[in-house]
Amino acid sequence: MNFNLNFNNIAENYLFAEVANRASAYASSHVGSRVLKLGIGDVTLPLAPEVIKALHAAVDDMSKKETFQGYGPYEGYDFLRESIRGYYKSRGIELALNEIFVSDGAKSDLGNILDIFSTNNVVLVPDPVYPVYVDTNIMAGRKIIYADATAENGFLPMPDSSVHADVIYICSPNNPTGAAYTREALKEWVDYANREGAVILYDAAYECFVRDENLARSIFEVDGARECAIEFCSFSKTAGFTGTRCGYTVIPEQLKKGSCSANKMWLRRQSTKFNGVPYIVQRGAAAVFTEKGQKEIHENLEVYKRNAALIAKAMDELNIWYTGGKNSPYIWLKCPDNMGSWEFFDYLLNNAEVVGTPGAGFGKNGEGFFRLTAFGSEEVTAEAVSRIKKLLKK
Amino acid sequence: MNFNLNFNNIAENYLFAEVANRASAYASSHVGSRVLKLGIGDVTLPLAPEVIKALHAAVDDMSKKETFQGYGPYEGYDFLRESIRGYYKSRGIELALNEIFVSDGAKSDLGNILDIFSTNNVVLVPDPVYPVYVDTNIMAGRKIIYADATAENGFLPMPDSSVHADVIYICSPNNPTGAAYTREALKEWVDYANREGAVILYDAAYECFVRDENLARSIFEVDGARECAIEFCSFSKTAGFTGTRCGYTVIPEQLKKGSCSANKMWLRRQSTKFNGVPYIVQRGAAAVFTEKGQKEIHENLEVYKRNAALIAKAMDELNIWYTGGKNSPYIWLKCPDNMGSWEFFDYLLNNAEVVGTPGAGFGKNGEGFFRLTAFGSEEVTAEAVSRIKKLLKK
Repeated sequence: MNFNLNFNNIAENYLFAEVANRASAYASSHVGSRVLKLGIGDVTLPLAPEVIKALHAAVDDMSKKETFQGYGPYEGYDFLRESIRGYYKSRGIELALNEIFVSDGAKSDLGNILDIFSTNNVVLVPDPVYPVYVDTNIMAGRKIIYADATAENGFLPMPDSSVHADVIYICSPNNPTGAAYTREALKEWVDYANREGAVILYDAAYECFVRDENLARSIFEVDGARECAIEFCSFSKTAGFTGTRCGYTVIPEQLKKGSCSANKMWLRRQSTKFNGVPYIVQRGAAAVFTEKGQKEIHENLEVYKRNAALIAKAMDELNIWYTGGKNSPYIWLKCPDNMGSWEFFDYLLNNAEVVGTPGAGFGKNGEGFFRLTAFGSEEVTAEAVSRIKKLLKK
Repeated sequence: MNFNLNFNNIAENYLFAEVANRASAYASSHVGSRVLKLGIGDVTLPLAPEVIKALHAAVDDMSKKETFQGYGPYEGYDFLRESIRGYYKSRGIELALNEIFVSDGAKSDLGNILDIFSTNNVVLVPDPVYPVYVDTNIMAGRKIIYADATAENGFLPMPDSSVHADVIYICSPNNPTGAAYTREALKEWVDYANREGAVILYDAAYECFVRDENLARSIFEVDGARECAIEFCSFSKTAGFTGTRCGYTVIPEQLKKGSCSANKMWLRRQSTKFNGVPYIVQRGAAAVFTEKGQKEIHENLEVYKRNAALIAKAMDELNIWYTGGKNSPYIWLKCPDNMGSWEFFDYLLNNAEVVGTPGAGFGKNGEGFFRLTAFGSEEVTAEAVSRIKKLLKK
């Protein structure tokens, strides 16, 4: 037996471990300090009451022979898929029910979708990037090329027609940069993909943070996307499901080549390697789309959006260049005084007792940048912002 | 972009669709008929009260800021892994905590584990077989060879030292045949695997049905297994979790080759392509291992075991050859009068209005055999057995 030696080519990413190490080393050598964390990408508010109610009701269903649920459909229950279809319809996008696949999260699907593509494909990812796009492809031995996201292009790289790619990752609003594409810019990516015969894997996990009407919340707002794109979405950030685990993936029927249909291949993949999302969780997820559920999750989202706006306003006042914050829970800022990412990390930790995430951890173009997140509590965020302002005010 | 063309080599399996079609065609042309189903592999009893209690408590945790759970550990919460460790310890098997990985089910892990092995490995599966072992490997382009399971070897094939294999699938007690290996027989497989440098993927999903003291419930009861085996287990059949989704996989630290460690590679795979099992579900699963939980799930298991014993007793009385039934929820019988699998299916449907599963659907050696399952209700099982006895009594 031989192991898959491609695993030896995956870089160990010590980013979050190193962040945690430095923060705890500071705390233990500074007794009485109160370090505030704006580094995490995890939500902090509890599930909405309507979701809780639906989860309890579903648990009760599982307690009685008459309502007990065994194996569910691989692609998710129709009650949830109909709700997701309605959610798209409310934004002007018509989907067929069989184009919607419920899963245990966007991260699983973004990795597992690669099963249906050849390992000979060339993969294009932006730099800086969510490391999972890179690592999942290295595991399978695919060649990876990078699109530079920089301050010059506002961390929104555009297609280079002199470069061929087969599989293209786009995350908008972006993690880590918070930058989001307009419909017009996405249209250029869709046209490029259709010219190259490429597929776009579109990570829409942060779509619910988009406020600006010109920005896309789904790639299917763009003509031609049904021929080249797969969209991944999640309840994690929308409804606080990071520990409850539910997402969905949209694969249009038009995404085909020869006799191969991406939609049918994904159903085959899921029915062979997956047994569906817990009934209880799907009932909870469906409650997100009720009138009351929507009202409640938007109240939670407003908290995170206010946090993001507060951080962004501070950057404006401090005259610090940044992307994100307005249509994203992430603020990606240029480190002041040309500090390096880790240099600024230490400066902020030692002088303001605030922890963020060094941009260098997301790729070479992240050097000199820094990520702050809006998922902390309102109190922590407000105090952290006030400390940052005090420290960096010239 | 090219799709993964290996998908074109996966055989469409119409087994359960064809069973459903024939059953519903019969029902619609025979008004007033009452067709009884002993074909399904899904549980029918509701979750145990202790599990329900734990699920409700966990939902409440998610409703309050102080107890809310975001992203959990990729490999599962320690409270559940400690319980699983205790479950193995009670059977005399010592595991380290980091050898236990919680997942959303044995089926997912049995497919996904292949990510850590080279696609050049030769895979050995029994025939007849759970189709997922075959299909997941065809998707990745691996060569598959078969070990014949037949009436002559009691549907328990033994290793052939003249054949080399890299990855070996063993399911015991077996689906579909219900046959289970003794420790001595498993030892031969372990020795063969260690000689060949192969890995055994051991599917223990039905271990809780083993009564006979000579039969293994875990491959780690066998010396040498820690050097060559991975064990997959599930709450699906043990505790009725088919729609609640939780399982676990044990990868010993000794399973290594060169610088590659299966345990470390799987953790890397899971942390890159998976975000853990819902907190709520893990709390429910942990309740299975409490004293009260164990008592309750064993009451449920006794129902299925009584059903299996009832079917097996009928076969004894009818002088029909079969495997399973005593240490398994499956009864795998030789079709009477040398009928073919589908011939017997139609005979039983038309003359006793009972539905089972034709063995031919599980592989060439399944022809002439038939699977009945013990997961129906006690009433349905008793009536179906009485009809079968009446029909087949000479």
